[in-house]
Order: sequence, then C-alpha cells, then structure tokens
Amino acid sequence: MTDPLPTPTPLRRPRADQARLVADVVRHQIHAGGYQDGLPTEADLAAEFLVSRNAVREALAVLKAEGLIDREPKVGTHVAIRKYDHGLDALVGLQETFKGYGEIRNEVRATLTVAAPPSVARKLELDPGEPVVFIERLRYLGGLPLSLDMTYLACDVGEAVTEHALEDNDVFSLIELVTGQRLGRAAVAVEAVTADPHSAAILQVPDNAALLLLERLTHLDDGRPVDLEYIRMRGDRITMRSNLIRR
Amino acid sequence: MTDPLPTPTPLRRPRADQARLVADVVRHQIHAGGYQDGLPTEADLAAEFLVSRNAVREALAVLKAEGLIDREPKVGTHVAIRKYDHGLDALVGLQETFKGYGEIRNEVRATLTVAAPPSVARKLELDPGEPVVFIERLRYLGGLPLSLDMTYLACDVGEAVTEHALEDNDVFSLIELVTGQRLGRAAVAVEAVTADPHSAAILQVPDNAALLLLERLTHLDDGRPVDLEYIRMRGDRITMRSNLIRR
Repeated sequence: MTDPLPTPTPLRRPRADQARLVADVVRHQIHAGGYQDGLPTEADLAAEFLVSRNAVREALAVLKAEGLIDREPKVGTHVAIRKYDHGLDALVGLQETFKGYGEIRNEVRATLTVAAPPSVARKLELDPGEPVVFIERLRYLGGLPLSLDMTYLACDVGEAVTEHALEDNDVFSLIELVTGQRLGRAAVAVEAVTADPHSAAILQVPDNAALLLLERLTHLDDGRPVDLEYIRMRGDRITMRSNLIRR
Repeated sequence: MTDPLPTPTPLRRPRADQARLVADVVRHQIHAGGYQDGLPTEADLAAEFLVSRNAVREALAVLKAEGLIDREPKVGTHVAIRKYDHGLDALVGLQETFKGYGEIRNEVRATLTVAAPPSVARKLELDPGEPVVFIERLRYLGGLPLSLDMTYLACDVGEAVTEHALEDNDVFSLIELVTGQRLGRAAVAVEAVTADPHSAAILQVPDNAALLLLERLTHLDDGRPVDLEYIRMRGDRITMRSNLIRR
C-alpha cells in the first residue's frame, strides 16, 4: 500500500468485549506454537491491541482459568499446556494423527459383549438386542489423558479386534487388520459439552470443563457400518482442524 | 443371522459408566429428532439398555442439566430444546445453512475500524497496525441466541460490506457481492471452551456452559485472505457434522 494509512481508532468498547477479543487472538497464537519464550508484558499487549491494561489483565485471567497459561510474579506469563491439532479432513486414528508428537497409550477400562441398544443397533444396521462388542479406553498423550473413547463394534469384527493388543494400537488399524479391508467413510458429529463429574475425574479436568464430544460411525470400504464411537476429548488439549471449500 | 444369538451380558459396570453411555445414546437420539412424543419411561429405558433404573435416572439428570430435556412428575420426560446441524463439509454462512429451518437475525453489536493486532495482520497478510474492519454480531435462530461472531475483514472489503445491511445478510454473501468474486477455501479450527461470564450473559447460557469456538480464515477465490472470524456457538444448540474418507 502506498497511500498513508488512516489513523486507526483505539478500541472504544466495554472492557469485557476488549478482553474477549484479546483472549481469542492470544489463545490462537498459543495454539499455533507462539510465545515459546513467554508472553509479552501486559503493557506490550495493551499497546499491541490498543486496549487498556485492565482489559489485558482480564484476558489473561480467562486464559489462566482455561489452564492455558501460568502467571507468576517476577517470572512473568508462560504457556502452560500444549494444544494438539486433530484433523477433521481425513479419517485417521489418534496413533496415526500424533505420530511424531508423542506416544499414545490406551488404558482399556472395559471390553465386553453387550446387547445393542436400539439406537446403536440401528446405526450399525443390526437388530436391536444383537450382541455388539463394547470397548472403553482412556487415551493418553505425553502422560496426560487426552480422550475417553466408548466404542461399539459389530460382533464379528469386535471379537477379532479384541484378540489384539488394544493398549498400543488404534482400533482403526486393528479393524483393517482383522477384516483385510480398508476403512471407507465415516459420519462425524462434533459437539461441545461440559464434563460430568465422573468423566471429569477420569480425564483429570475440573468439573464442568468443556469437552469436545465426537460421535463417529465408521464404515468398511464395502459400505458396512462396523464401528460406532463416542469420544470425549479434553477441550484444553485438542483443536479440530479442517479446510473447507466454497461450493 | 441364522445362528441363535449368544445371550447378551447385562452391563455389569459402575453406575456412573452405565449412566454416561445411556446419556450419550439418548442425547444423539434427541438430536436426530427422536422422542417427539416424549422419552420412554425409566423402566423402559432400563430394559432397553440393560442397566439399573438408578443409572437411567442419573443419565436423565445429566441431560436435564444440559437443558436438553424437561422432567415433570405425571407429565413425564420431554425434549426441551431442538439442536441444529451445521455442516463442516462446505463453506456456507448461517443464513444459507438454516434456510428452511427458521429465520437468522443478526444483532450488530459493533462495527469499527481498528489497527490489526499482529496475529490478525499476519493471518490476513497485512502489516501489523494496518486498519481492519471489526464487526461483532449476536446471531439468533428462532428467537434464541445461537452464536456470537467476531469478524476481522480486510479494510477495503470491510468498508464495502458495512455499507450493506448486516442484520439480515451473511457476511459471506456480502463479501461475494462487493468483491464480485466467489469465496475460495477456508481454514477452520474447532475447539470446546467454557463460556466466560460476559459471553454467557450475551448468549443467554449459564456461566461455564460449553461453547464451540470456531476460528475461520476465509480466502477469496483468487487466494487472498479477507475474513478472519472467531465464532462462539452455543453447545446446546449446534452440532457440527462432517463426512470423512479414509485415505
């Protein structure tokens, strides 16, 4: 641009609105791997965003409450938790997703054969009451819980899958191994829910922490639905990413 | 299947685990438009899921706390809120998404020109401090708040967009109108966050309610990034849906 810039207006808005927008931008900087050497001072952030220092303080309090930063007198403000990206573009398991970022470890909390509740049966195209294999796993990345996964598998697939080590394999890979087929498509629903006290305790987050809840119905390459999962991901540890195209 | 079914095992698990899985399945039934005439009785749900009535009661308490169902003595249990699907497969505005479901109304809370904070400038490929147009809108569907959207537009695009009626048009449509170009691709990040008290009051949800937070950077068809949005969606009103393919 060769024209002189118009003088930008300082942000004359209620402090809470200023704080929210500072928090949003700083949060995404953190998730993008920014501020490795600590956050700028309150004064620098106030100057950068053209807001008051009180607004910056309020924004940092929000990020601290989210567990994203630590603030210590004299030491300054530092990023407290690393957030991981999970693609929403392709169908991949956690192990495949985080290859290179750290080890995924699965704590198997339950594997059992149950009668399919009607809605589970309908999605897996079974008759209500037909047996399905139910697997519950708590999944860790870098020593901290990442997600609590409840999986219903069509019985033949599930029985074969549970003969393999669930602790250090994605269910996706095991399904492909035991069926000799690639997976095909999956229908995914993503919601934000608050953690009930029991899930919160398992995932090691405060009660009412925000979780991403995924419902994912995965089909084999031949179109047969075999894997229905309900996955609770810690909101403070996962960002889902996708690229969209205008049709 | 011609073989007799194996006798399914009743679900012998801690009550909280039983309750969680009942809540997950019933929640998705509700979102799929089920239970229009009310939910089954506790006894029927207990029989359907092979769990105890106490587990069912606990599951229904969770769904009630989420605002999804109402429970009244004698009247029974009914669906309280309709949840809407928002596609994650294509790049569409709210107005386009919910065509036919109800009217989207936008309450414009702010439009102003501000100096781009460095991270906003970087994403929009501007120099830090260059002016951008900032728009904040509270978006209603069917008379209830759906999302709080904060939008940064490249200055030329933003100035042209804000000459049009923001109350009843998607920003996407207006960008295409004023630039004479179709939108191209967008990078989207989806997170679950808890509502800070101020956002909660604006969105009319309890403090700490779970929200979906979208960061979306949208490019024109020629590749220029022009629209950076931070969108807080009510977790109790929106499900994001997508179809994934195994690569």
